[in-house]
Amino acid sequence: MVSRYVIGLDYGTESARGVLLDADSGEQVASHAHSYRHGVMTRMPDGRTLPPFWALQDAADYIEAAEAILSALGRGRQVEGIGLGFTASSPLPATREGVALSQLHPQDPHAYVKLWKHGAAQAQAEAINAQGGAFLDNFGGKVSGEWLLAKAAQIAEEAPEIWDETGRFIEAGDWLVWQLTGNETRSLGLATYKAQYSAESGYPSHLVPGLADRLSAPKRVGSSGGRLSTAWRERTGIVGEAVVAVAVIDSHVVLPAVGGVSDGCLVGALGTSAVYLVLGKDFRPLPPGIEGVAFDGSMRDLWCYEAGQAGFGDTLAWFVRTFPRSQDPAENFRLYNEEAATLAPGGNHLLALDWWNGNRVPLADSGLSGLLIGLKTGTTAAGIYRALLESLCFGARSIFDLFVAGGFAIERILLSSGLALNNPLLIQIMADVFEREVEVPQIDNPTAVGAAIHGAVAAGVVAGYPEGSARFGARSFRRYRPDDDAASAYRGLYRNYKALCDSQQLRGVMHDLNRIGTD
Amino acid sequence: MVSRYVIGLDYGTESARGVLLDADSGEQVASHAHSYRHGVMTRMPDGRTLPPFWALQDAADYIEAAEAILSALGRGRQVEGIGLGFTASSPLPATREGVALSQLHPQDPHAYVKLWKHGAAQAQAEAINAQGGAFLDNFGGKVSGEWLLAKAAQIAEEAPEIWDETGRFIEAGDWLVWQLTGNETRSLGLATYKAQYSAESGYPSHLVPGLADRLSAPKRVGSSGGRLSTAWRERTGIVGEAVVAVAVIDSHVVLPAVGGVSDGCLVGALGTSAVYLVLGKDFRPLPPGIEGVAFDGSMRDLWCYEAGQAGFGDTLAWFVRTFPRSQDPAENFRLYNEEAATLAPGGNHLLALDWWNGNRVPLADSGLSGLLIGLKTGTTAAGIYRALLESLCFGARSIFDLFVAGGFAIERILLSSGLALNNPLLIQIMADVFEREVEVPQIDNPTAVGAAIHGAVAAGVVAGYPEGSARFGARSFRRYRPDDDAASAYRGLYRNYKALCDSQQLRGVMHDLNRIGTD
Repeated sequence: MVSRYVIGLDYGTESARGVLLDADSGEQVASHAHSYRHGVMTRMPDGRTLPPFWALQDAADYIEAAEAILSALGRGRQVEGIGLGFTASSPLPATREGVALSQLHPQDPHAYVKLWKHGAAQAQAEAINAQGGAFLDNFGGKVSGEWLLAKAAQIAEEAPEIWDETGRFIEAGDWLVWQLTGNETRSLGLATYKAQYSAESGYPSHLVPGLADRLSAPKRVGSSGGRLSTAWRERTGIVGEAVVAVAVIDSHVVLPAVGGVSDGCLVGALGTSAVYLVLGKDFRPLPPGIEGVAFDGSMRDLWCYEAGQAGFGDTLAWFVRTFPRSQDPAENFRLYNEEAATLAPGGNHLLALDWWNGNRVPLADSGLSGLLIGLKTGTTAAGIYRALLESLCFGARSIFDLFVAGGFAIERILLSSGLALNNPLLIQIMADVFEREVEVPQIDNPTAVGAAIHGAVAAGVVAGYPEGSARFGARSFRRYRPDDDAASAYRGLYRNYKALCDSQQLRGVMHDLNRIGTD
Repeated sequence: MVSRYVIGLDYGTESARGVLLDADSGEQVASHAHSYRHGVMTRMPDGRTLPPFWALQDAADYIEAAEAILSALGRGRQVEGIGLGFTASSPLPATREGVALSQLHPQDPHAYVKLWKHGAAQAQAEAINAQGGAFLDNFGGKVSGEWLLAKAAQIAEEAPEIWDETGRFIEAGDWLVWQLTGNETRSLGLATYKAQYSAESGYPSHLVPGLADRLSAPKRVGSSGGRLSTAWRERTGIVGEAVVAVAVIDSHVVLPAVGGVSDGCLVGALGTSAVYLVLGKDFRPLPPGIEGVAFDGSMRDLWCYEAGQAGFGDTLAWFVRTFPRSQDPAENFRLYNEEAATLAPGGNHLLALDWWNGNRVPLADSGLSGLLIGLKTGTTAAGIYRALLESLCFGARSIFDLFVAGGFAIERILLSSGLALNNPLLIQIMADVFEREVEVPQIDNPTAVGAAIHGAVAAGVVAGYPEGSARFGARSFRRYRPDDDAASAYRGLYRNYKALCDSQQLRGVMHDLNRIGTD
């Protein structure tokens, strides 16, 4: 019997990574990564500097990465399905035929992909928010300057000649599916969370002149975008059905790889920042402060609520970089973790607000900043490091509490990422602070594996996500159970954390500090 | 003509230091230091551990230090006057003849000197404060557990047999004058600030049974305690009049050495902690939060108001020790200062509350703790160090403001100490934050020199303190003038500093943090 495979692609900010899975055994057979030739563009290829907050990418880099990865993993192999996760919102203008405008106008910045973190469309977002509308009900009442509507409005305003030539304004993930298959097939996940589409009302495209003509209706996750095109089979040597699934937001695509396929799951991806997704069978109004919700856009037949912390791993990385004990970052973390683990919960008498990058939920305020309180001449560096670990857990707990207060029954807490795998002290504090069992899925490359499961569903290799998750996803979960004494100490710290979060005065001081020295 | 000299002695916490000054030219001729044999005793000589917060000294160590220093500096010399500054309140029980009870009962902890930082008489202080009385009007309404009344009450309660044998309960500085001269002569400065004596009402000795019989009336600063005794002339080889001045509180004795001899001077001694003394010709009611005031006890014919910061140099030392850049502490400070000096005032967008050791003025609350706000992933270690420098200056400014609000006209700001001499960045920030010219007296061993000036006044070598200050004190002052732009940036930071100081909520959190983990 010939072996059959599925491939998952994870398109991140600096590079793409692919995994090859055995379609029958579910084993990871190989993985391959490829960095983007132009990375994140803060200047043009000819050297011109871009204005502040601009962040572009060259769509040609995605093609180069796809060819490299699919060839390395798939050449000569019977590939049944391909799925992909992609950063979002990272839209680009293309012709009606799918040609990226950057290929036609390489000298024009507005012809390129506006990467998710392109922050120069804030004025357009504010103009949209000033109009408001029911389409914002599931998104906390406002769009972000990082989302598709604002980025479309920026091109329409600032580069009308490019906007005129734009036949399709499309997320890079959807555009890549189009390139691979020859069919324009948009993702419901990208359309809902990043362009405020709903099945009832469509896109709120009236907000940007001409936008309606440049979009198209999306399909739910696990849908087929078509088979890999003949041209791509030639470029990569792939044989087999090679059904390409619709694209998925990179932070959502991990769900089936880590067991997040059912009602009542909370999946936290603890990366540089942290994303928390809660799956629910029944719709509930968006709890105050939670960022967005959509149906069928992340996991089939489920609502997926999204929330997050603006800073997570980068806050810890800041600490060990700013106060190094070793030149080697990994050793730095090891030394701090080792000493922090010897401290008793609450024995520090020290508390932090984890707002080094601002606060995303519930305050949606990037102008906030971090705070440390309780410092004494007996405070140690490892004590501060531990207070940062604890504050990140308090921030996570405060998001959890919003869901609980909104009537959600959270059955399972799954925390996934390299950080979750490598920092047992952090995860034990999570369990103690949550006063709940927490599980860490033991799996490599979970995002790319999640993408592969979407490909397997779209190709019919499995009957659905639960089967895909069981076959390809994590097979073991490390369980962390709360310790009663620690939980009790953290209860007092958390009460104070919440009191500081709620202080209008502190937020006022943080905003004022941003202004000082800038006049 | 035979050269004439004066000697100043500075009795600190771990050691004593003396300087020999030419009585006519005013030049420093020599200095000599001697560490106490038993240092700060937290256990008994036989090895028994003392209870928490106890801190004793052995009076015999003071004698040994006096003999070593006076011999080294004075042998064969014509010494006209000797003055001494001493830690306070550091009282001991003695017989009516001046024999320290520790010599008679070396096994009893209560027979030893209770050092200024002996903190085990807090319960007695609280009992006294509960009674209250007009004698507290000049001391912010309460006595400290570190002062003489509380320490007397502790012996009377806990060691009645020692109290019965106590003929005199006396500050160690006064006791040393007695030993050197053969006359019991108490210091008005020690009696007022540390035992709440007043010329009108005497000591509030009714608060401790039997205390009245164990004290005696004090004399103002610059009074003679008598000539050095024959026995001490033999031990040290000193010749000449050798008039010994009454003792002075160590933090006050510096005044004439640094130019602090007239109405309207604010003298700050920036040490491990910081002490601020304001001199005034006319009495004004104690501004709220200021710790104490007395007349003729620090400088003749002047009221001297006292205030301070519980943490100063030790907060900076904590930072460089906790986050070292070099194994050498001095190099550590140099590196941090160098980088901090490159940052713009307010460019940090970072603010600290300088309460690492609690707050002394105006809150008198040792349970408070330090705070940092404005932390971002772009914050640097040197940025935090600079925020600490700034917060120490804000704390000093808030004390200055209390005096100004109380109607004081501050004519000169004099900042003295090794830190003031060695850290021009800190002092420039002081000038910018105060928006006032600040002067740093350029003088070595200022505390011992100040003591010598007291000796010179008592001996009639000079007609009074202004002449003594001119002859023996600092001859040059480095002036720091405020920079307009910096002052403007600090104005905004200081407004926020004050707002945080005034936050009841933050103080509540700090207290709560102290309790967490201790249940």
